[in-house]
Amino acid sequence: MKQQHQRSIIRYQDGTAFEKEDPVAVEYAITIKLNNKEFATIVCTPEYIEDMTVGFLASEGVVPKWEQIKDIRLDLENGFIYVDTNKAYPFFEQLQNKRYITSCCGMSRQGFIFANDALTAKKMDGISVELTPGQIFSLMNQMEEQAEMFRHTGGVHNAALCAPNQLLLSRMDIGRHNALDKIYGHCLKNNISVRDKIIVFSGRISSEILLKVAKIGCEIVLSKSAPTELALSLADDLGITTVGFIRGGSFNVYTHPERIVMGDTTLFSDYRKK
Amino acid sequence: MKQQHQRSIIRYQDGTAFEKEDPVAVEYAITIKLNNKEFATIVCTPEYIEDMTVGFLASEGVVPKWEQIKDIRLDLENGFIYVDTNKAYPFFEQLQNKRYITSCCGMSRQGFIFANDALTAKKMDGISVELTPGQIFSLMNQMEEQAEMFRHTGGVHNAALCAPNQLLLSRMDIGRHNALDKIYGHCLKNNISVRDKIIVFSGRISSEILLKVAKIGCEIVLSKSAPTELALSLADDLGITTVGFIRGGSFNVYTHPERIVMGDTTLFSDYRKK
Repeated sequence: MKQQHQRSIIRYQDGTAFEKEDPVAVEYAITIKLNNKEFATIVCTPEYIEDMTVGFLASEGVVPKWEQIKDIRLDLENGFIYVDTNKAYPFFEQLQNKRYITSCCGMSRQGFIFANDALTAKKMDGISVELTPGQIFSLMNQMEEQAEMFRHTGGVHNAALCAPNQLLLSRMDIGRHNALDKIYGHCLKNNISVRDKIIVFSGRISSEILLKVAKIGCEIVLSKSAPTELALSLADDLGITTVGFIRGGSFNVYTHPERIVMGDTTLFSDYRKK
Repeated sequence: MKQQHQRSIIRYQDGTAFEKEDPVAVEYAITIKLNNKEFATIVCTPEYIEDMTVGFLASEGVVPKWEQIKDIRLDLENGFIYVDTNKAYPFFEQLQNKRYITSCCGMSRQGFIFANDALTAKKMDGISVELTPGQIFSLMNQMEEQAEMFRHTGGVHNAALCAPNQLLLSRMDIGRHNALDKIYGHCLKNNISVRDKIIVFSGRISSEILLKVAKIGCEIVLSKSAPTELALSLADDLGITTVGFIRGGSFNVYTHPERIVMGDTTLFSDYRKK
Protein backbone atom coordinates (compact mmCIF):
# COMPACT_ATOMS: atom_id res chain seq x y z
CA MET A 1 0.00 0.00 0.00
CA LYS A 2 1.23 3.49 -0.87
CA GLN A 3 2.50 5.78 1.91
CA GLN A 4 2.12 8.92 -0.13
CA HIS A 5 -0.29 10.13 -2.74
CA GLN A 6 0.36 12.55 -5.63
CA ARG A 7 -2.14 15.36 -5.60
CA SER A 8 -2.83 18.22 -7.97
CA ILE A 9 -2.60 21.44 -5.94
CA ILE A 10 -2.38 25.19 -6.50
CA ARG A 11 0.90 26.70 -5.36
CA TYR A 12 1.17 30.43 -4.64
CA GLN A 13 4.74 31.72 -4.81
CA ASP A 14 6.39 35.06 -5.64
CA GLY A 15 3.02 36.66 -6.29
CA THR A 16 1.75 34.12 -8.81
CA ALA A 17 -0.32 30.94 -8.61
CA PHE A 18 0.22 27.78 -10.63
CA GLU A 19 -0.88 24.16 -10.62
CA LYS A 20 1.53 21.42 -9.64
CA GLU A 21 1.70 17.83 -8.45
CA ASP A 22 2.62 17.45 -4.79
CA PRO A 23 3.13 14.37 -2.58
CA VAL A 24 0.83 14.11 0.46
CA ALA A 25 1.16 11.60 3.32
CA VAL A 26 -1.49 8.85 3.37
CA GLU A 27 -3.54 8.28 6.53
CA TYR A 28 -5.01 4.80 6.85
CA ALA A 29 -7.45 3.50 9.47
CA ILE A 30 -6.91 -0.02 10.75
CA THR A 31 -9.23 -1.68 13.26
CA ILE A 32 -7.76 -4.33 15.56
CA LYS A 33 -10.09 -7.29 16.16
CA LEU A 34 -8.75 -9.09 19.21
CA ASN A 35 -10.18 -12.60 19.50
CA ASN A 36 -12.94 -11.44 17.13
CA LYS A 37 -13.89 -8.45 19.28
CA GLU A 38 -13.32 -4.85 18.10
CA PHE A 39 -10.51 -3.56 20.30
CA ALA A 40 -9.29 -0.26 18.82
CA THR A 41 -9.04 1.70 15.58
CA ILE A 42 -5.65 3.25 14.82
CA VAL A 43 -5.08 5.87 12.14
CA CYS A 44 -1.59 5.30 10.76
CA THR A 45 0.84 5.31 7.86
CA PRO A 46 0.19 1.98 6.13
CA GLU A 47 3.48 0.13 6.57
CA TYR A 48 4.66 -2.28 9.28
CA ILE A 49 1.03 -2.56 10.44
CA GLU A 50 1.61 -6.00 11.99
CA ASP A 51 4.56 -4.73 14.06
CA MET A 52 2.53 -1.69 15.12
CA THR A 53 -0.35 -3.89 16.26
CA VAL A 54 1.97 -6.19 18.25
CA GLY A 55 3.67 -3.16 19.83
CA PHE A 56 0.38 -1.43 20.59
CA LEU A 57 -1.20 -4.48 22.25
CA ALA A 58 1.97 -5.01 24.32
CA SER A 59 2.25 -1.40 25.42
CA GLU A 60 -1.44 -1.42 26.38
CA GLY A 61 -0.64 -4.46 28.52
CA VAL A 62 -3.21 -6.57 26.69
CA VAL A 63 -0.85 -9.01 24.98
CA PRO A 64 2.55 -8.44 26.61
CA LYS A 65 4.45 -11.18 24.78
CA TRP A 66 4.81 -12.16 21.13
CA GLU A 67 4.47 -15.85 22.11
CA GLN A 68 0.94 -15.19 23.36
CA ILE A 69 -0.22 -14.40 19.83
CA LYS A 70 -1.58 -17.55 18.14
CA ASP A 71 -2.43 -15.94 14.83
CA ILE A 72 -2.29 -12.47 13.23
CA ARG A 73 -3.89 -11.73 9.83
CA LEU A 74 -3.96 -8.40 8.02
CA ASP A 75 -6.91 -7.54 5.73
CA LEU A 76 -5.53 -4.40 4.07
CA GLU A 77 -8.43 -4.00 1.68
CA ASN A 78 -11.05 -3.64 4.41
CA GLY A 79 -8.80 -2.12 7.07
CA PHE A 80 -8.86 -4.89 9.66
CA ILE A 81 -6.17 -6.83 11.48
CA TYR A 82 -7.26 -9.99 13.29
CA VAL A 83 -5.28 -11.04 16.34
CA ASP A 84 -6.01 -14.33 18.09
CA THR A 85 -4.38 -15.04 21.41
CA ASN A 86 -3.96 -18.14 23.53
CA LYS A 87 -6.10 -16.69 26.28
CA ALA A 88 -8.38 -13.75 26.90
CA TYR A 89 -7.32 -10.80 29.06
CA PRO A 90 -10.55 -9.62 30.70
CA PHE A 91 -8.66 -7.76 33.42
CA PHE A 92 -7.00 -5.38 30.98
CA GLU A 93 -10.17 -4.88 29.02
CA GLN A 94 -11.86 -3.58 32.13
CA LEU A 95 -8.98 -1.25 32.94
CA GLN A 96 -8.60 0.20 29.48
CA ASN A 97 -8.83 3.98 29.52
CA LYS A 98 -9.99 3.89 33.10
CA ARG A 99 -8.65 6.85 35.01
CA TYR A 100 -6.05 5.91 37.59
CA ILE A 101 -6.41 8.08 40.67
CA THR A 102 -4.12 7.05 43.49
CA SER A 103 -0.72 7.99 44.73
CA CYS A 104 0.70 4.49 45.00
CA CYS A 105 3.83 3.43 43.04
CA GLY A 106 5.68 6.28 44.75
CA MET A 107 4.19 8.78 42.31
CA SER A 108 3.98 11.96 44.24
CA ARG A 109 2.66 14.01 41.36
CA GLN A 110 -0.29 13.53 39.09
CA GLY A 111 1.65 10.59 37.70
CA PHE A 112 0.00 7.89 35.67
CA ILE A 113 -3.24 8.88 34.07
CA PHE A 114 -4.46 5.47 32.99
CA ALA A 115 -4.46 2.30 35.04
CA ASN A 116 -2.87 0.11 32.37
CA ASP A 117 0.07 2.53 32.08
CA ALA A 118 0.91 1.98 35.73
CA LEU A 119 0.97 -1.76 35.12
CA THR A 120 3.10 -1.82 31.98
CA ALA A 121 5.61 1.05 32.33
CA LYS A 122 8.97 -0.30 33.47
CA LYS A 123 11.14 1.43 36.05
CA MET A 124 14.82 1.73 35.08
CA ASP A 125 17.38 1.08 37.79
CA GLY A 126 21.08 1.38 37.13
CA ILE A 127 22.93 2.41 33.99
CA SER A 128 22.97 -0.01 31.05
CA VAL A 129 23.96 2.58 28.46
CA GLU A 130 25.82 5.91 28.36
CA LEU A 131 26.10 8.62 25.69
CA THR A 132 28.56 11.42 25.00
CA PRO A 133 27.46 14.74 23.43
CA GLY A 134 29.13 13.64 20.17
CA GLN A 135 27.08 10.44 20.11
CA ILE A 136 23.88 12.40 20.82
CA PHE A 137 24.43 14.69 17.81
CA SER A 138 25.45 11.79 15.60
CA LEU A 139 22.35 9.70 16.43
CA MET A 140 20.04 12.66 15.80
CA ASN A 141 21.74 13.23 12.42
CA GLN A 142 21.42 9.55 11.50
CA MET A 143 17.71 9.59 12.40
CA GLU A 144 17.10 12.66 10.26
CA GLU A 145 18.95 11.19 7.29
CA GLN A 146 16.47 8.29 7.37
CA ALA A 147 13.49 10.65 7.42
CA GLU A 148 12.99 10.68 3.65
CA MET A 149 9.18 10.69 3.73
CA PHE A 150 9.19 13.72 6.02
CA ARG A 151 11.29 15.63 3.51
CA HIS A 152 8.76 14.82 0.77
CA THR A 153 5.47 15.40 2.57
CA GLY A 154 6.27 17.23 5.83
CA GLY A 155 3.53 15.20 7.46
CA VAL A 156 5.09 12.36 9.47
CA HIS A 157 6.97 11.67 12.69
CA ASN A 158 10.16 9.65 12.82
CA ALA A 159 11.51 7.38 15.51
CA ALA A 160 14.63 5.24 15.67
CA LEU A 161 16.06 2.54 17.89
CA CYS A 162 19.79 3.07 18.31
CA ALA A 163 22.90 1.67 19.91
CA PRO A 164 25.30 4.39 21.15
CA ASN A 165 27.22 4.52 17.86
CA GLN A 166 24.67 3.27 15.36
CA LEU A 167 21.06 3.60 14.24
CA LEU A 168 19.55 0.10 14.23
CA LEU A 169 15.94 0.58 13.12
CA SER A 170 14.01 3.57 11.80
CA ARG A 171 10.22 3.91 11.53
CA MET A 172 7.90 6.74 10.53
CA ASP A 173 4.20 7.38 10.95
CA ILE A 174 1.68 10.20 10.73
CA GLY A 175 0.77 9.25 14.34
CA ARG A 176 3.40 10.08 16.95
CA HIS A 177 3.07 6.97 19.06
CA ASN A 178 2.56 4.61 16.09
CA ALA A 179 6.21 5.02 15.06
CA LEU A 180 7.23 3.81 18.52
CA ASP A 181 4.74 0.92 18.48
CA LYS A 182 6.24 -0.20 15.15
CA ILE A 183 9.68 -0.30 16.79
CA TYR A 184 8.36 -2.07 19.88
CA GLY A 185 6.54 -4.73 17.83
CA HIS A 186 9.67 -5.41 15.78
CA CYS A 187 11.73 -5.85 18.95
CA LEU A 188 9.18 -8.22 20.50
CA LYS A 189 8.88 -10.36 17.37
CA ASN A 190 12.63 -10.58 16.88
CA ASN A 191 13.50 -10.87 20.56
CA ILE A 192 15.78 -7.79 20.46
CA SER A 193 17.03 -6.64 23.85
CA VAL A 194 16.24 -2.94 24.31
CA ARG A 195 17.65 -2.09 27.74
CA ASP A 196 20.99 -0.86 26.37
CA LYS A 197 19.39 0.91 23.37
CA ILE A 198 18.29 4.51 22.84
CA ILE A 199 15.05 5.89 21.38
CA VAL A 200 15.52 8.93 19.07
CA PHE A 201 12.31 10.81 18.26
CA SER A 202 11.51 13.71 15.95
CA GLY A 203 8.60 15.16 17.94
CA ARG A 204 7.79 16.49 21.38
CA ILE A 205 8.20 14.28 24.45
CA SER A 206 4.67 14.23 25.86
CA SER A 207 3.65 11.97 28.75
CA GLU A 208 2.26 9.54 26.19
CA ILE A 209 5.60 9.30 24.36
CA LEU A 210 7.56 9.01 27.60
CA LEU A 211 5.30 6.16 28.72
CA LYS A 212 5.81 4.39 25.38
CA VAL A 213 9.57 4.59 25.91
CA ALA A 214 9.14 3.20 29.44
CA LYS A 215 6.94 0.39 28.17
CA ILE A 216 9.43 -0.52 25.43
CA GLY A 217 12.04 -0.51 28.18
CA CYS A 218 14.70 1.97 27.01
CA GLU A 219 16.69 4.10 29.46
CA ILE A 220 17.36 7.13 27.23
CA VAL A 221 15.12 9.15 24.90
CA LEU A 222 16.53 11.85 22.58
CA SER A 223 14.34 14.45 20.87
CA LYS A 224 14.75 17.42 18.56
CA SER A 225 11.85 19.04 20.32
CA ALA A 226 10.47 20.04 23.75
CA PRO A 227 9.24 17.83 26.61
CA THR A 228 6.21 18.48 28.83
CA GLU A 229 6.35 18.74 32.60
CA LEU A 230 4.24 15.60 33.14
CA ALA A 231 6.57 13.62 30.86
CA LEU A 232 9.56 14.84 32.91
CA SER A 233 7.86 13.98 36.23
CA LEU A 234 7.28 10.47 34.94
CA ALA A 235 10.87 10.29 33.65
CA ASP A 236 12.16 11.39 37.08
CA ASP A 237 10.23 8.60 38.77
CA LEU A 238 10.80 5.91 36.14
CA GLY A 239 14.55 6.55 35.93
CA ILE A 240 14.61 7.59 32.27
CA THR A 241 17.14 10.07 30.83
CA THR A 242 15.43 12.69 28.64
CA VAL A 243 17.42 14.92 26.27
CA GLY A 244 15.54 17.54 24.24
CA PHE A 245 16.08 20.46 21.84
CA ILE A 246 18.99 18.69 20.11
CA ARG A 247 19.74 21.38 17.53
CA GLY A 248 22.70 23.31 16.18
CA GLY A 249 25.33 21.81 18.48
CA SER A 250 23.36 22.17 21.71
CA PHE A 251 20.84 20.22 23.78
CA ASN A 252 19.08 20.12 27.16
CA VAL A 253 19.31 17.24 29.63
CA TYR A 254 16.10 17.29 31.66
CA THR A 255 16.19 14.14 33.78
CA HIS A 256 18.70 11.53 34.98
CA PRO A 257 21.86 13.11 33.52
CA GLU A 258 23.98 10.30 35.00
CA ARG A 259 23.84 8.48 31.63
CA ILE A 260 25.29 11.46 29.71
CA VAL A 261 29.08 11.45 30.01
CA MET A 262 31.63 14.09 29.05
CA GLY A 263 35.12 12.74 29.67
CA ASP A 264 36.53 14.71 32.60
CA THR A 265 34.18 17.69 32.50
CA THR A 266 33.07 18.28 36.05
CA LEU A 267 29.39 19.15 35.89
CA PHE A 268 28.24 15.83 34.48
CA SER A 269 30.77 14.04 36.69
CA ASP A 270 29.24 15.70 39.73
CA TYR A 271 25.83 14.44 38.73
CA ARG A 272 27.20 10.95 38.31
CA LYS A 273 28.52 10.96 41.86
CA LYS A 274 25.09 11.70 43.35
CA MET B 1 -3.39 26.82 37.50
CA LYS B 2 0.04 27.31 35.93
CA GLN B 3 0.55 26.54 32.24
CA GLN B 4 4.28 26.29 32.52
CA HIS B 5 6.69 25.07 35.14
CA GLN B 6 10.25 26.24 35.82
CA ARG B 7 12.64 23.33 35.85
CA SER B 8 16.33 23.02 36.67
CA ILE B 9 18.02 21.45 33.64
CA ILE B 10 21.51 20.87 32.26
CA ARG B 11 22.21 22.75 29.05
CA TYR B 12 25.02 21.66 26.73
CA GLN B 13 26.20 24.43 24.44
CA ASP B 14 29.47 25.31 22.68
CA GLY B 15 31.21 22.30 24.18
CA THR B 16 30.34 22.99 27.82
CA ALA B 17 27.53 22.00 30.18
CA PHE B 18 25.89 24.22 32.78
CA GLU B 19 22.80 24.27 34.96
CA LYS B 20 19.94 26.63 34.20
CA GLU B 21 16.25 27.22 34.83
CA ASP B 22 14.02 26.47 31.86
CA PRO B 23 10.23 26.77 31.36
CA VAL B 24 8.43 23.52 30.45
CA ALA B 25 4.79 23.20 29.32
CA VAL B 26 2.42 21.66 31.88
CA GLU B 27 0.28 18.67 30.90
CA TYR B 28 -2.85 18.21 32.98
CA ALA B 29 -5.34 15.31 32.91
CA ILE B 30 -9.02 16.15 33.26
CA THR B 31 -11.76 13.51 33.39
CA ILE B 32 -15.21 14.45 32.12
CA LYS B 33 -18.05 13.00 34.19
CA LEU B 34 -21.18 13.27 32.06
CA ASN B 35 -24.32 12.85 34.16
CA ASN B 36 -22.09 11.23 36.81
CA LYS B 37 -20.66 8.68 34.40
CA GLU B 38 -16.98 8.70 33.39
CA PHE B 39 -17.02 9.77 29.75
CA ALA B 40 -13.43 10.59 28.72
CA THR B 41 -10.07 11.73 30.09
CA ILE B 42 -8.34 14.53 28.19
CA VAL B 43 -4.71 15.51 28.68
CA CYS B 44 -4.48 19.26 28.14
CA THR B 45 -2.95 22.63 28.97
CA PRO B 46 -4.90 23.73 32.06
CA GLU B 47 -6.72 26.83 30.85
CA TYR B 48 -10.19 27.28 29.33
CA ILE B 49 -11.04 23.76 30.49
CA GLU B 50 -14.77 24.47 30.59
CA ASP B 51 -14.76 25.74 26.98
CA MET B 52 -12.72 22.71 25.92
CA THR B 53 -15.20 20.34 27.55
CA VAL B 54 -18.19 22.06 25.93
CA GLY B 55 -16.43 21.99 22.54
CA PHE B 56 -15.35 18.37 22.93
CA LEU B 57 -18.82 17.11 23.89
CA ALA B 58 -20.36 19.04 20.97
CA SER B 59 -17.82 17.81 18.42
CA GLU B 60 -18.35 14.24 19.63
CA GLY B 61 -22.07 14.80 19.01
CA VAL B 62 -22.91 13.97 22.62
CA VAL B 63 -24.11 17.40 23.73
CA PRO B 64 -24.48 19.42 20.51
CA LYS B 65 -25.86 22.62 22.07
CA TRP B 66 -24.79 24.81 24.99
CA GLU B 67 -28.46 25.09 26.07
CA GLN B 68 -28.55 21.33 26.72
CA ILE B 69 -26.04 21.71 29.55
CA LYS B 70 -27.84 22.13 32.87
CA ASP B 71 -24.74 22.45 35.02
CA ILE B 72 -20.95 22.36 34.58
CA ARG B 73 -18.55 22.31 37.56
CA LEU B 74 -14.76 22.15 37.44
CA ASP B 75 -12.84 20.42 40.26
CA LEU B 76 -9.29 21.49 39.35
CA GLU B 77 -7.68 19.96 42.42
CA ASN B 78 -8.81 16.42 41.63
CA GLY B 79 -8.90 16.76 37.86
CA PHE B 80 -12.62 16.30 37.23
CA ILE B 81 -15.21 18.29 35.36
CA TYR B 82 -18.85 17.41 36.01
CA VAL B 83 -21.35 18.03 33.22
CA ASP B 84 -25.06 17.53 33.78
CA THR B 85 -27.42 17.62 30.82
CA ASN B 86 -31.16 17.86 30.45
CA LYS B 87 -31.36 14.43 28.91
CA ALA B 88 -29.17 11.42 28.31
CA TYR B 89 -27.79 10.59 24.87
CA PRO B 90 -27.63 6.78 24.83
CA PHE B 91 -27.49 6.69 21.02
CA PHE B 92 -24.20 8.54 20.88
CA GLU B 93 -22.72 6.57 23.72
CA GLN B 94 -23.23 3.39 21.74
CA LEU B 95 -21.66 4.86 18.64
CA GLN B 96 -18.61 6.34 20.32
CA ASN B 97 -15.40 5.09 18.73
CA LYS B 98 -17.33 2.53 16.75
CA ARG B 99 -15.77 2.03 13.37
CA TYR B 100 -17.94 3.33 10.57
CA ILE B 101 -17.71 1.08 7.53
CA THR B 102 -20.03 2.06 4.75
CA SER B 103 -19.89 4.12 1.62
CA CYS B 104 -23.00 6.18 2.24
CA CYS B 105 -22.86 10.01 2.51
CA GLY B 106 -21.33 10.06 -0.96
CA MET B 107 -17.93 9.19 0.52
CA SER B 108 -16.21 7.32 -2.24
CA ARG B 109 -12.96 6.93 -0.34
CA GLN B 110 -12.16 5.56 3.08
CA GLY B 111 -14.03 8.59 4.39
CA PHE B 112 -15.26 8.82 7.92
CA ILE B 113 -13.58 6.49 10.36
CA PHE B 114 -15.94 6.84 13.29
CA ALA B 115 -19.71 6.81 13.18
CA ASN B 116 -20.19 9.93 15.28
CA ASP B 117 -17.96 11.91 12.92
CA ALA B 118 -20.33 11.16 10.05
CA LEU B 119 -23.20 12.50 12.13
CA THR B 120 -21.60 15.73 13.35
CA ALA B 121 -19.33 16.94 10.52
CA LYS B 122 -21.10 19.66 8.55
CA LYS B 123 -20.96 19.89 4.76
CA MET B 124 -20.21 23.38 3.44
CA ASP B 125 -22.19 24.53 0.42
CA GLY B 126 -21.58 27.91 -1.16
CA ILE B 127 -19.06 30.60 -0.30
CA SER B 128 -19.59 32.59 2.91
CA VAL B 129 -16.03 33.89 3.14
CA GLU B 130 -13.15 34.62 0.75
CA LEU B 131 -9.44 35.34 1.35
CA THR B 132 -6.69 36.98 -0.68
CA PRO B 133 -3.03 35.85 -0.42
CA GLY B 134 -2.29 39.02 1.58
CA GLN B 135 -4.99 38.15 4.11
CA ILE B 136 -3.67 34.57 4.38
CA PHE B 137 -0.15 35.77 5.27
CA SER B 138 -1.49 38.41 7.64
CA LEU B 139 -3.70 35.95 9.57
CA MET B 140 -0.82 33.46 9.92
CA ASN B 141 1.41 36.27 11.25
CA GLN B 142 -1.24 37.40 13.72
CA MET B 143 -1.68 33.82 14.99
CA GLU B 144 2.06 33.42 15.48
CA GLU B 145 2.35 36.71 17.34
CA GLN B 146 -0.16 35.35 19.86
CA ALA B 147 1.83 32.15 20.34
CA GLU B 148 3.82 33.38 23.32
CA MET B 149 3.77 30.10 25.24
CA PHE B 150 5.18 28.27 22.23
CA ARG B 151 8.13 30.67 22.11
CA HIS B 152 8.85 29.96 25.79
CA THR B 153 8.41 26.20 25.93
CA GLY B 154 8.28 24.93 22.32
CA GLY B 155 5.70 22.42 23.44
CA VAL B 156 2.23 23.63 22.45
CA HIS B 157 -0.04 23.98 19.41
CA ASN B 158 -1.83 27.19 18.57
CA ALA B 159 -5.18 27.76 16.91
CA ALA B 160 -7.09 30.93 16.13
CA LEU B 161 -10.56 31.88 14.97
CA CYS B 162 -10.32 34.73 12.49
CA ALA B 163 -12.37 37.05 10.31
CA PRO B 164 -10.69 37.81 6.94
CA ASN B 165 -8.87 40.87 8.29
CA GLN B 166 -8.63 40.14 12.00
CA LEU B 167 -7.75 37.49 14.55
CA LEU B 168 -10.75 37.14 16.90
CA LEU B 169 -9.74 34.43 19.38
CA SER B 170 -6.50 32.56 20.03
CA ARG B 171 -6.07 29.35 22.05
CA MET B 172 -3.12 27.06 22.72
CA ASP B 173 -2.79 23.54 24.05
CA ILE B 174 -0.27 20.72 24.26
CA GLY B 175 -2.96 18.59 22.53
CA ARG B 176 -3.59 19.47 18.87
CA HIS B 177 -7.37 19.08 18.92
CA ASN B 178 -7.85 20.61 22.39
CA ALA B 179 -6.96 24.08 21.07
CA LEU B 180 -9.79 23.72 18.53
CA ASP B 181 -12.23 22.39 21.15
CA LYS B 182 -11.47 25.47 23.29
CA ILE B 183 -12.40 27.69 20.36
CA TYR B 184 -15.53 25.67 19.57
CA GLY B 185 -16.74 25.74 23.19
CA HIS B 186 -16.24 29.51 23.36
CA CYS B 187 -18.28 29.99 20.18
CA LEU B 188 -21.11 27.76 21.42
CA LYS B 189 -21.30 29.47 24.82
CA ASN B 190 -21.24 32.94 23.33
CA ASN B 191 -23.39 32.12 20.31
CA ILE B 192 -20.73 33.28 17.84
CA SER B 193 -21.50 32.53 14.20
CA VAL B 194 -18.59 30.64 12.63
CA ARG B 195 -19.65 30.08 9.03
CA ASP B 196 -17.88 33.22 7.75
CA LYS B 197 -14.81 32.71 9.96
CA ILE B 198 -11.45 31.03 9.32
CA ILE B 199 -9.50 28.55 11.46
CA VAL B 200 -5.72 29.16 11.55
CA PHE B 201 -3.68 26.28 12.97
CA SER B 202 0.01 25.83 13.78
CA GLY B 203 0.21 22.08 13.19
CA ARG B 204 -0.44 19.49 10.52
CA ILE B 205 -3.94 19.09 9.07
CA SER B 206 -4.71 15.45 9.89
CA SER B 207 -8.15 13.90 9.32
CA GLU B 208 -8.88 14.52 12.99
CA ILE B 209 -8.14 18.25 12.69
CA LEU B 210 -10.09 18.55 9.43
CA LEU B 211 -13.10 16.89 11.07
CA LYS B 212 -12.88 19.30 14.02
CA VAL B 213 -12.99 22.22 11.59
CA ALA B 214 -16.00 20.65 9.84
CA LYS B 215 -17.74 20.10 13.18
CA ILE B 216 -17.10 23.68 14.27
CA GLY B 217 -18.53 24.69 10.90
CA CYS B 218 -15.78 26.81 9.28
CA GLU B 219 -15.26 26.82 5.51
CA ILE B 220 -11.51 27.58 5.45
CA VAL B 221 -8.56 26.17 7.41
CA LEU B 222 -5.04 27.66 7.16
CA SER B 223 -1.93 25.86 8.39
CA LYS B 224 1.82 26.43 8.53
CA SER B 225 2.27 22.73 8.05
CA ALA B 226 1.35 19.77 5.83
CA PRO B 227 -2.01 18.04 5.37
CA THR B 228 -2.62 14.30 5.03
CA GLU B 229 -4.36 12.66 2.09
CA LEU B 230 -7.33 11.46 4.20
CA ALA B 231 -7.84 15.01 5.52
CA LEU B 232 -7.86 16.31 1.94
CA SER B 233 -10.33 13.62 0.78
CA LEU B 234 -12.65 14.65 3.59
CA ALA B 235 -12.14 18.34 2.74
CA ASP B 236 -12.98 17.62 -0.93
CA ASP B 237 -16.24 15.96 0.07
CA LEU B 238 -17.18 18.35 2.89
CA GLY B 239 -16.54 21.47 0.81
CA ILE B 240 -13.72 22.87 2.99
CA THR B 241 -10.87 25.01 1.63
CA THR B 242 -7.48 23.81 2.96
CA VAL B 243 -4.36 25.95 2.66
CA GLY B 244 -1.04 24.57 3.94
CA PHE B 245 2.70 25.29 4.11
CA ILE B 246 2.08 29.02 4.64
CA ARG B 247 5.72 30.09 4.95
CA GLY B 248 8.06 32.70 3.53
CA GLY B 249 5.60 34.32 1.14
CA SER B 250 4.23 31.11 -0.35
CA PHE B 251 1.47 28.56 0.34
CA ASN B 252 -0.36 25.57 -1.17
CA VAL B 253 -4.11 25.47 -1.81
CA TYR B 254 -5.12 21.80 -1.64
CA THR B 255 -8.92 21.78 -1.84
CA HIS B 256 -11.77 24.07 -2.86
CA PRO B 257 -9.67 27.01 -4.16
CA GLU B 258 -12.85 28.92 -5.07
CA ARG B 259 -12.64 30.78 -1.74
CA ILE B 260 -9.10 32.08 -2.41
CA VAL B 261 -9.28 35.17 -4.62
CA MET B 262 -6.52 37.04 -6.44
CA GLY B 263 -7.98 40.08 -8.14
CA ASP B 264 -7.84 39.42 -11.89
CA THR B 265 -5.26 36.61 -11.86
CA THR B 266 -6.60 33.94 -14.16
CA LEU B 267 -5.79 30.65 -12.45
CA PHE B 268 -7.94 31.22 -9.40
CA SER B 269 -10.61 32.87 -11.55
CA ASP B 270 -10.77 29.74 -13.68
CA TYR B 271 -11.35 27.67 -10.62
CA ARG B 272 -14.13 29.98 -9.49
CA LYS B 273 -15.94 29.54 -12.81
CA LYS B 274 -16.06 25.77 -12.48
